[in-house]
Amino acid sequence: MLGKIALEEAFALPRFDEKTRWWASLFSTDPETHVKEITDINKIRIEHADKYGVGYQILSYTAPGVQDIWDPAEAQALAVEINDYIAEQIKGRPDRFGAFATLSMHNPEEAATELRRCVEKYGFLGALVNDTQRAGPDGDDMIFYDNASWDVFWKTATDLDVPLYLHPRNPTGTIYNKLWADRKWLVGPPLSFAHGVSLHALGMVTNGVFDRHPKLQIILGHLGEHIPFDMWRINHWFEDRKKILGLAETCKRTIREYFADNLWITTSGHFSTTTLNFCMSEVGSDRILFSIDYPFETFPDACEWFDAAELNVVDKRKIGKDNAKRLFKLGAYKDSEA
Amino acid sequence: MLGKIALEEAFALPRFDEKTRWWASLFSTDPETHVKEITDINKIRIEHADKYGVGYQILSYTAPGVQDIWDPAEAQALAVEINDYIAEQIKGRPDRFGAFATLSMHNPEEAATELRRCVEKYGFLGALVNDTQRAGPDGDDMIFYDNASWDVFWKTATDLDVPLYLHPRNPTGTIYNKLWADRKWLVGPPLSFAHGVSLHALGMVTNGVFDRHPKLQIILGHLGEHIPFDMWRINHWFEDRKKILGLAETCKRTIREYFADNLWITTSGHFSTTTLNFCMSEVGSDRILFSIDYPFETFPDACEWFDAAELNVVDKRKIGKDNAKRLFKLGAYKDSEA
Amino acid sequence: MLGKIALEEAFALPRFDEKTRWWASLFSTDPETHVKEITDINKIRIEHADKYGVGYQILSYTAPGVQDIWDPAEAQALAVEINDYIAEQIKGRPDRFGAFATLSMHNPEEAATELRRCVEKYGFLGALVNDTQRAGPDGDDMIFYDNASWDVFWKTATDLDVPLYLHPRNPTGTIYNKLWADRKWLVGPPLSFAHGVSLHALGMVTNGVFDRHPKLQIILGHLGEHIPFDMWRINHWFEDRKKILGLAETCKRTIREYFADNLWITTSGHFSTTTLNFCMSEVGSDRILFSIDYPFETFPDACEWFDAAELNVVDKRKIGKDNAKRLFKLGAYKDSEA
Amino acid sequence: MLGKIALEEAFALPRFDEKTRWWASLFSTDPETHVKEITDINKIRIEHADKYGVGYQILSYTAPGVQDIWDPAEAQALAVEINDYIAEQIKGRPDRFGAFATLSMHNPEEAATELRRCVEKYGFLGALVNDTQRAGPDGDDMIFYDNASWDVFWKTATDLDVPLYLHPRNPTGTIYNKLWADRKWLVGPPLSFAHGVSLHALGMVTNGVFDRHPKLQIILGHLGEHIPFDMWRINHWFEDRKKILGLAETCKRTIREYFADNLWITTSGHFSTTTLNFCMSEVGSDRILFSIDYPFETFPDACEWFDAAELNVVDKRKIGKDNAKRLFKLGAYKDSEA
Repeated sequence: MLGKIALEEAFALPRFDEKTRWWASLFSTDPETHVKEITDINKIRIEHADKYGVGYQILSYTAPGVQDIWDPAEAQALAVEINDYIAEQIKGRPDRFGAFATLSMHNPEEAATELRRCVEKYGFLGALVNDTQRAGPDGDDMIFYDNASWDVFWKTATDLDVPLYLHPRNPTGTIYNKLWADRKWLVGPPLSFAHGVSLHALGMVTNGVFDRHPKLQIILGHLGEHIPFDMWRINHWFEDRKKILGLAETCKRTIREYFADNLWITTSGHFSTTTLNFCMSEVGSDRILFSIDYPFETFPDACEWFDAAELNVVDKRKIGKDNAKRLFKLGAYKDSEA
Repeated sequence: MLGKIALEEAFALPRFDEKTRWWASLFSTDPETHVKEITDINKIRIEHADKYGVGYQILSYTAPGVQDIWDPAEAQALAVEINDYIAEQIKGRPDRFGAFATLSMHNPEEAATELRRCVEKYGFLGALVNDTQRAGPDGDDMIFYDNASWDVFWKTATDLDVPLYLHPRNPTGTIYNKLWADRKWLVGPPLSFAHGVSLHALGMVTNGVFDRHPKLQIILGHLGEHIPFDMWRINHWFEDRKKILGLAETCKRTIREYFADNLWITTSGHFSTTTLNFCMSEVGSDRILFSIDYPFETFPDACEWFDAAELNVVDKRKIGKDNAKRLFKLGAYKDSEA
Repeated sequence: MLGKIALEEAFALPRFDEKTRWWASLFSTDPETHVKEITDINKIRIEHADKYGVGYQILSYTAPGVQDIWDPAEAQALAVEINDYIAEQIKGRPDRFGAFATLSMHNPEEAATELRRCVEKYGFLGALVNDTQRAGPDGDDMIFYDNASWDVFWKTATDLDVPLYLHPRNPTGTIYNKLWADRKWLVGPPLSFAHGVSLHALGMVTNGVFDRHPKLQIILGHLGEHIPFDMWRINHWFEDRKKILGLAETCKRTIREYFADNLWITTSGHFSTTTLNFCMSEVGSDRILFSIDYPFETFPDACEWFDAAELNVVDKRKIGKDNAKRLFKLGAYKDSEA
Repeated sequence: MLGKIALEEAFALPRFDEKTRWWASLFSTDPETHVKEITDINKIRIEHADKYGVGYQILSYTAPGVQDIWDPAEAQALAVEINDYIAEQIKGRPDRFGAFATLSMHNPEEAATELRRCVEKYGFLGALVNDTQRAGPDGDDMIFYDNASWDVFWKTATDLDVPLYLHPRNPTGTIYNKLWADRKWLVGPPLSFAHGVSLHALGMVTNGVFDRHPKLQIILGHLGEHIPFDMWRINHWFEDRKKILGLAETCKRTIREYFADNLWITTSGHFSTTTLNFCMSEVGSDRILFSIDYPFETFPDACEWFDAAELNVVDKRKIGKDNAKRLFKLGAYKDSEA
C-alpha cells in the first residue's frame, strides 16, 4: 500500500550520540546502524519510506527521553530544545513529516504550555509522552497523569484537539526495578513496556480522566499493550465493581465505550495478522492505526507484513492511512498523496 | 457438557471466617454468599456442579493464602493444616474432588517435601501457588521461584510428575504497592493479577527453569494472564535477543515451544469465545483447560458460556475435560463418568 | 441494542394463506404460527420488534414469490399487487417500516419501470429479488441478471441510488432439481440457497455488471452465502485468470474491491459470532448489516445473539443500525429513534 | 517445517500428454510447465519437495480422470492401468511417496474390489475420487455415492481402514452445464468445485452414509469446500429439521459430530491464515491436514505460506504432518524422518 502513515517513529538528538550508542548496545544486534538511523531525519528515513510505501511519518523523541530526567528544569530545557530541533528539521517536508511534541511532565501547567506552543507555533500533531515522569531527589518517584492535578493539561490537549501518544519507558524506582533486574530479558518490548502503559492507561480510565475530558484522545502502541486481550475480563470486573463498590463514581462508561470514544491502538512492533484480527473484533478497525516503531523495528518487517496481510480492503485502507488522516486532520496530505 | 473438569476452584478454612468476610467486602457485591460458598466443600459446591455439568473439581486454598504470610514457620504450619484439612474433607468423594497442595514458598526444600507428602500421602494432583511469597521482616520482600535455588523444588515436581498452578495474588511491597493504591480498581482481576503472574511465568522461561526441567508443567489461569496476546511480539524480541545478547544461554527454545511443552492455560474468569478462539490459534487447544475461578466467578457464568460456546466438538471436549484427564491422569474418573 | 434495523424480513399476501400453509408444512416445525407471522404486518411484528429492540424493518415479499412464476404477465401483475399492498400496509408507520420492491424479472425494462414506480411513488428503499427468475414454457428456464441485457435495469437502480437484495429461492429445472431431490434435506438454508446466490452474485462480478455499473449496491444474506470463506481462494484464481486468460476484460477490480465498493452482507439466519468475526476480517464491518430472516428465523434467536455478541461497540453499532442508516439514507429515522 | 506431508497431489499418464496440454490451456498461465510437472513423478516433484520441506506425498490421478468416462468398461480399464502405473513408479521411494487408488465409480462392487486390490497388493493409502461419476449414454448422468447401493463400497473402505478423498471435478450435464457456461470464470476453484463437493459430502451426511458406516473417513480439500463457513447455520437447520421433519431418521448426529468423527479437511489451494484460524475453531486442528494441490498450485505458494503462518507449534505440527501420520498410519515414515 502506498501512502501509509506511521506514528511511533523515533529520533534522537545528534549531540547525544555517545549515549545513544551505549543505549543501543543494551538491546540492539547492530548498534551502529541503530545510531545512524535514529539520528537521521531526512535521508535514510525517506529512503526507507519510499521503498516501503510510507507516505507520512509522525516523529517523536526516543524513549525514555525527557521522562527519564528527574530534574524539572533540565527536563523542560531539553524538551524545548528537542521541539525546536525537530521543527527545524522537518519544516521543508510537510508532505512527509509531522511531529509529536516532547514534554517535560513534571508540572501540568508547564507541559500544557509547551504543548500549546508546539501545536500553535510549529503545527505539531499532538504529543508523545513516555509513560510516567521520573521525579524525586533520586529519580525514584513516578509521576502519573491520571489524577485531577493533570486536568489542566488534558483540557489543553482537548482544547487544541490533538491526541497524546502514551509510549512506554523502562521501569525505574528501587523495588520496582529489582523485579525487572532479576529477569532482565523481560525489560522492554517483551513485557515491561506493556505493564507500564496498561497500568497508566487503565488508571486514566478508572480515575476519571476520560469522564472529565470526554473528547480526549489517547494512542497506545503495540496493539494496545495487552489491554484488548482482557477486554471481556476487564469489562466483567469493572461492571461488577460499579454495582456497589464505587467505581461508577469516576468511570461511568464501559471499558468498551472508552475504547470507542477515547483510545486508539497502533500496530507498532506487533506485526501479527492473527492478533490484528483479534483486535479488529475487540477494539474495531476504526481505532487501529498502522505504525512501525522505527528504528527499533524495521520498515520491511512492518510494511511487508502489513502490505501482505490478508484483510478486507476497506479496513486495510483505514488502518494503513485513513484513520490517521481522520485523527490528525491530514486532508492536505491526502490531496497530495501519490 | 456433562463431566466438565474445573481446576481453579478456591476454598477457605472455616476458622478464618471473620477474615474471609472482611476480605470479601473489598471486592464482592455479596460478601455473605461469598463466605458461605468459599468455606463450603461438599454441599453448595456439589449442588452447583450437578446443576451445571461439572463432574470433577480440583480444589485449592484461596489467594493470597500462605503466600501472604512472611513468617516462614507460620506459613509452613498453615500450609500443613490446610492440606490435612482438605484431604479429610474430600476423601469421601474421589469421584468429584481432587486437590492441589498448598505450600509455604519460603524454602525450596521444605516446599518440595510438603508437595511430596501431599502427592504421596493424599494423592493430591499438584500444587497451586499464589505468585511470589511475601517475605522479609515486614513482608515487603517477594520470593520468586525462577532462579536456580528453586531447582530442587522443580525437580521434585517433575519427579512426582505433577503440575503447578501459578495463581495470582495481590501486589505487595512499598513502592510496588503505591502504584496500585493510587489506581485501586485495577488491583486483582482487571490488571494486577496478570502483571504479577506474567512476570513470574516469563521469568521462569527466560531464567532457564524449563530448560533445566524440560518436563515441568505450569498452569496459568485467565487464558494465560495476557501472554498469548503478545506471542508474536515476545517471540520476535526473544529471538532477537538470542542473536548476540545472551538470552540463548538460559532460554534455548522459542516462547511458542515452551507453550507447547511446559505451559497450560485455563479459562478461569475469562469467559470470552473471541479470546478463546484467539488462544486456540496462539496456544492451541491441546493446552487449554476449562476452569471457573469459583466462588470469585459463578458456575452459571462459566458453564453456560462454555456449554453454549460455538466450537468444534473435539476441542470442546478437550478443553472441557479431556485435556485435564490427560494432564492429571484421571483415567479412573473417566471410567466412572456419567 | 435498541433501534436495530433488520432488512431480510418476509411477508406474504393473505389471499395465499392456503398455499402459505402448505409451503410452511415443508420446512416449519410450527406451520400455523408461521402462517400467522408471515401474513401479519402491523401487530405481531411490532410486538416482536418492541420486545427485542428492533427499531426499523424493511419488508419484502417471501421467497420464491414472483421469481417462481414463469408466466411473464402473471408475474408482473402479482408484483404490482404486492407492491401496492405493502405500501398501503406500512404507510402509517414510516418510523418502523420500509419496504423493498417485489419485481417480475422477465423483462429488464419492465422490472426497471416497476422499481422506479415503487421508489418514486412509495418511497421503497430498493428491491429484493429471489435469485433467478423461473421462465420458459414449463418454468424450467432460469433467467440470470448478470448479462448485458440487464444493464438497463441496473442503470435504473443506480440512477435511483437504491440497492438490490439478492435473496435465494429453491432450485428448479429438471436436472438441477434432481440433484437436490435426492438430497432434499440440503434444499434451502443448509446448502442450496448459498449455491444459487453465490453463483449469481459472482456471475455478476465476473460478467462485468459492477464494472459497467460501479455504483451498484447488492446485498447478500446469510453472511454472504459462503463467498467470504473463499475470499483468498477466489482472489487467487481470479487474479491468475486475469493474467492471460481474459477475465480482466470484464472484471477489472479484485474480488476484495467489489466487496469494498458494491457488495454488502447481512447476518440473516447466521447467528454465529465466530463467523461474524471472520467476516469482519474478510469483508469488513462497514459492509455488514444486521438482519433476522423473520419469520423463518425468530426475533429472539437473532436479537439475543446479536445483543450479547462480544464485539467492540463501534462495529456493533455499525452492524446493528448505522450501516443501514447510511446505505438507505435513514437520517430521519435516526432523528426519531428512541 | 521439514517433513510436511501433502495429499492432494496430482499426476497424469504420459500417454495422454496431448490431452493434458489442451486441458492445461484452459486454465493455466503456463501450460508447458504444467504438463511437465503433472506427468513427472520422481524428479521435479522430489526437487520441489526437498526445496520446500515436504517429506511425503500421496499421489492421485488428476481430475476429472476416470470420473469423466461414462463408459463403464473403459473407465474400469483406465483405473486399473493408472493404479498399476503409479504403483510401479513409486515403489522405489516408499519414504517419499504413497498413492491413492483411482477408481471407476460405475459399480460399487467393482469399485470396492479395485480399492481392495490397490490397498492389499500395493499398499495404497485409500482412494481419491473426483466427485460424481459421469454416466449414461451421453455422459449427462451423475452417479452419487450417498445412497444405500454404495454401502458395499463404504463397508470395504472401513474394513480396509482407509479414507477416501472426495475431490472436485468440473460440472457436467446439459442444464447444469449451462449454468456454468454462462459464467465460465467460476468453473473450477473459484466456485463450481466447492458446489459439487459440498453437495456430495453433505448428501452423504444427510442420507445416512456415516450413520451406516460410523468409522468411514472422508477427506475434503480446499479447507472444506465452504462447509465450515456455515457450520452454525447447517447445524441450526439440521437440528430443526430433525424435530418433526424426518431428518433424524438417517442423520442421528450433529454436523459438528460428523466433522469430529468422519470428516477431514486439507489446506489444498487455500493458503489463508485467517481462514485456517476460522477452521481451527469450526472444525478443529485435529482434523486439518496440510496439502498443496500441485501442480495446480505451487510448492512455494503452499509451503512458504504454511511455514510462515503464525500458529502455535502443536497445531502446526499436527496440520503439517502429525495428523496425516495418524490417519494413514505412517509410523514407519515417522521413524525415518530426518
